Amino acid sequence: MLDRFNCSPRRLASRALPKLPILRWARGYSAAAAAGDLVAGATVAMTLIPQSIAYASLAGLEPQYGLYASLVGGFVYAYLGTCPQINIGPSALISLLTFTYTNGTNADYAVLLCFVSGIAEVVAGIAQLGFLVQLVSLPVVSGFTSAAALTIASSQVKGLLGLSFKSESFIDTWRGVVTHVKEVRLADTGLSLLCCLVLFGMKSLKDQRAPKSLKKVLWFSSVARNAVVVILAATLAYFLHEDTTHPLILTGEITSGLPSPRLPFLSSGNGTSTAPVGAMLRHLGSGLLVVPLVSIISNVAIAKAFSNGKTLDATQEIIALGVCNVVGSFFSSFPINGSFTRSALSDASGVRTPAAGFYTGLLVLLTLLFLTPLFYYIPRAAFASVITCAVLHMVDVDIVRKLWRANKVDVIPLAATFSLCLSLGVEVGLLCGVAVDALLLLLYHTAPPLQLQFVHDGVLPPHHAIYPVGGLHYAGAEKIRSKLMKLQDSQAEFNQSKAEKSSRNVVKSNDTESSVVTVKVPEINNILVVYCSRLYRVDYTVLQSLKMIVQEWRGTIVWYCASAALRHQLDCSMEGLRYCDSQEELQRTLGEMSPSVPLPHDTTAVTGETRL
Amino acid sequence: MLDRFNCSPRRLASRALPKLPILRWARGYSAAAAAGDLVAGATVAMTLIPQSIAYASLAGLEPQYGLYASLVGGFVYAYLGTCPQINIGPSALISLLTFTYTNGTNADYAVLLCFVSGIAEVVAGIAQLGFLVQLVSLPVVSGFTSAAALTIASSQVKGLLGLSFKSESFIDTWRGVVTHVKEVRLADTGLSLLCCLVLFGMKSLKDQRAPKSLKKVLWFSSVARNAVVVILAATLAYFLHEDTTHPLILTGEITSGLPSPRLPFLSSGNGTSTAPVGAMLRHLGSGLLVVPLVSIISNVAIAKAFSNGKTLDATQEIIALGVCNVVGSFFSSFPINGSFTRSALSDASGVRTPAAGFYTGLLVLLTLLFLTPLFYYIPRAAFASVITCAVLHMVDVDIVRKLWRANKVDVIPLAATFSLCLSLGVEVGLLCGVAVDALLLLLYHTAPPLQLQFVHDGVLPPHHAIYPVGGLHYAGAEKIRSKLMKLQDSQAEFNQSKAEKSSRNVVKSNDTESSVVTVKVPEINNILVVYCSRLYRVDYTVLQSLKMIVQEWRGTIVWYCASAALRHQLDCSMEGLRYCDSQEELQRTLGEMSPSVPLPHDTTAVTGETRL
Repeated sequence: MLDRFNCSPRRLASRALPKLPILRWARGYSAAAAAGDLVAGATVAMTLIPQSIAYASLAGLEPQYGLYASLVGGFVYAYLGTCPQINIGPSALISLLTFTYTNGTNADYAVLLCFVSGIAEVVAGIAQLGFLVQLVSLPVVSGFTSAAALTIASSQVKGLLGLSFKSESFIDTWRGVVTHVKEVRLADTGLSLLCCLVLFGMKSLKDQRAPKSLKKVLWFSSVARNAVVVILAATLAYFLHEDTTHPLILTGEITSGLPSPRLPFLSSGNGTSTAPVGAMLRHLGSGLLVVPLVSIISNVAIAKAFSNGKTLDATQEIIALGVCNVVGSFFSSFPINGSFTRSALSDASGVRTPAAGFYTGLLVLLTLLFLTPLFYYIPRAAFASVITCAVLHMVDVDIVRKLWRANKVDVIPLAATFSLCLSLGVEVGLLCGVAVDALLLLLYHTAPPLQLQFVHDGVLPPHHAIYPVGGLHYAGAEKIRSKLMKLQDSQAEFNQSKAEKSSRNVVKSNDTESSVVTVKVPEINNILVVYCSRLYRVDYTVLQSLKMIVQEWRGTIVWYCASAALRHQLDCSMEGLRYCDSQEELQRTLGEMSPSVPLPHDTTAVTGETRL
Repeated sequence: MLDRFNCSPRRLASRALPKLPILRWARGYSAAAAAGDLVAGATVAMTLIPQSIAYASLAGLEPQYGLYASLVGGFVYAYLGTCPQINIGPSALISLLTFTYTNGTNADYAVLLCFVSGIAEVVAGIAQLGFLVQLVSLPVVSGFTSAAALTIASSQVKGLLGLSFKSESFIDTWRGVVTHVKEVRLADTGLSLLCCLVLFGMKSLKDQRAPKSLKKVLWFSSVARNAVVVILAATLAYFLHEDTTHPLILTGEITSGLPSPRLPFLSSGNGTSTAPVGAMLRHLGSGLLVVPLVSIISNVAIAKAFSNGKTLDATQEIIALGVCNVVGSFFSSFPINGSFTRSALSDASGVRTPAAGFYTGLLVLLTLLFLTPLFYYIPRAAFASVITCAVLHMVDVDIVRKLWRANKVDVIPLAATFSLCLSLGVEVGLLCGVAVDALLLLLYHTAPPLQLQFVHDGVLPPHHAIYPVGGLHYAGAEKIRSKLMKLQDSQAEFNQSKAEKSSRNVVKSNDTESSVVTVKVPEINNILVVYCSRLYRVDYTVLQSLKMIVQEWRGTIVWYCASAALRHQLDCSMEGLRYCDSQEELQRTLGEMSPSVPLPHDTTAVTGETRL
């Protein structure tokens, strides 16, 4: 396991040096690819722009920060990314986490979080820590995603109903809704309902049966639904709006223009109070680890989903994600990562290369420069509807059925992760889910696969055989010992009862490889052969258990086909062990030990029976 | 794994009903056994009485509580215990934990902790939770024990030097010693030095070479060293003591007489303030879980060490421990469990049955009734010396060497547990150690044993073979997929380069069971046979990974010897899989798939080479 860290300086350097995947595809970039990328880039922008403003409010920031966060990702990823479909920008989950860790502060904290997360991701990429992603199983990911989606949707209930109160967690929000139920604004609620209906309706358009020519139009309408709903709602609000009455809660002024580049790690000066960067980092606390971790997990998962069987360069993907965050933080971005929705959209729009990010980025740039004044009239309810409809499909109910059919035990980590994420917060829930999974793995290893057999096939002298398989870990040490001790006890009993009865049983050997012979059940003896050919790992606790077996076993133990490494381990703990490395040697050794039994070549003499 | 919980009501009842192991041995109790038990019981009492007073002060309680805690264990264990050597009473580790959780309160809290721990232990015994002990590996136990011994010894440094200040943790104590170094009392320090020297000297007596008659005297002196040192120190203090000057810090008044039985779960009335039982339980907090857990772990470990190869009834041992605590709590006992030192002593004194506990208990009873006034003059330094010398041998340095030789990775949980126990407290350190161990197990499973081979032995048509072994867990899912994808890529490359070179390589098959033949390396094809006969467990994450392999593999996959359970799992996730259950079937199936290759029986035609 340690050789993962055991690399030469040159190898380290070749890993650490930045790679530019753009060099691989840029030279052969064709007009056809450019056309595909342009369409995909524009389509993604149409979803990204309304989503990003909504996610900014989810993260507790002013709307323009959403656009700032959408600006840099596409450009940087075009240079460093390997997966054409991925669009790096604000995502629901990371926005929620950003809110969790920067709640009650100002935008400088979110930008600092983006910067530090980016650094952490680059470091994780270079240090090959991407393998940590493997410690999170699918049931845990699914429970986490579903709970996060529910948490996000719940946080939007305020926006949907036109309420405003402070809340952080899932339970908090619903308690608040119940308390403030009398303040529900009818106009906002009505608009939300309308928006959601239109969104669901438009989404289902692309699944309708239609002639091929119409099919494309339907598909495009379905894809453009977020933009359409937001524009329609804004138009409605514009006409309803009067200077004195405000029937709908609006987005209001958005600072237009590009973000001015600034260093993300300066002290935060917030009018009345300033916070030094150390205090800001302390405030962000565990978020500095959780945000990059979750970003990496979801980004690798998305990249894997779109890799189409090609081996994924996870390291490169993680570094690309990190650089996007670091560069973004200089342009006032909050933490960003890939979004599954946008990636799927890009894929469906016929993306060819990561260059699609350029076009998306350009459109965001134009929006920031010219379109922000138009956003004033967009109702908050419309944005809340966009988020809610986007995340609700992330709730995966069907997986419970799948798990139940395929592997029932896997329901436990799913249920644990889901409920802990909702009750303790998504980030704590995720870690607890991984712990539950690890505990189940440990429990599995308390009863390792351990075939035990009394071999009396006529080929070898009769003996007990044990076939350990895979790894023997500390959790199973006791099981191994007690199983063998029980064997020894039952054998003594058996011999006694046999001596009393002195009856002759005839059984069939169930060994398929040798010819099937019918033999008398021999006196059960106390020779134990440990077949080690499939034994790959033994830890210290198991070694001590084996040592006790060796001391307590009333008879002889032979170790068959033990690898050199295993031999070394056994010899370190015990003395005078007998090894056999070939069938012949085993036959000879066993023959010597049970001298009353003639050597196996004349089996008829042993059994007194004729071969079948 | 779930069948552990899957028991019939009758089986549950037979487990839940209390067993009385005393019935097994009481009928045949002989005079010889009684003599052995009497000697052992008296010897243990000689160690137990001074130790228990010392441990009471370790737990932050008045001296008489140590005697109360020693009173009941022996009597109850004689009825319920199965291991003659074990003596249930105060132990260093549990006293330390009691101090951690009841520090700053009064004795009622410790008694309540004893009661609740007892209940928890009985419940754990009935629920068969003893298997949880297996989750703690030997390196973790060793790191924990060593750190606990150092923590306990450190806590006695105050007593050794005659200092008095408040401290809780290991680091706390040493910082305090440095701060208060000017207040060191010379007389106490000198006495401590003397006591420790005498204790070490007397301990080594039993290892001296001597004629047989003298040997017994030496052994007895060695065993009685705690009592001897305490008596000598007390005599010295008696003569040094004057009414006006106190050169040594003494134990002082000990309440004599038996503890009056009382309900342990009543509110604590402490002169000025009373605490309801709910508040007391909240104060004890996680101690209500940690104390029984640690008690169970150490008790089972001790019982196992003295089981001499007989199968240990761990459930019965845990229930016996629990009942000792519950009954003890009605007589003002703080939490108790077995002690390794006393058990080893009992063993060496020739104990025969658990009845030895009766005699020990009787001697404690007599002490409480008549001897307590004599304890007034025992110097605190003498008790501190007794504890320090008793725990220091628990620090196991040698294990580092053993682990390094046998299994280097196991040094990590040892080091982690040891350092975390010292820095965060023993109870947190233990849990973190288990977590580190589980994480290492997970990391191991990121690279599961996975033999990959290109089989071209002349017996079966050439094919790729993969031999998964044991369990495939989520952590390894990615590894399996990437390894197979790499195989497919390299195979495509190989075929290409081979077509270019068109050279003929001759290799030797390394299969030992079939006759060794030299064959031409055939065109590497894309038939994959998954040999499942040694595959015992697949979880959902791995199933999804297998599904991706099936979708991405450019060729055919055959599943050989999949068990019914595995087939069911595979069929739940994928469709149209090909299974083969016998060698012949596999041969036929593979033959059909690679029609260009003649059937294997005329191998010479395939290879164009003669057999060796």
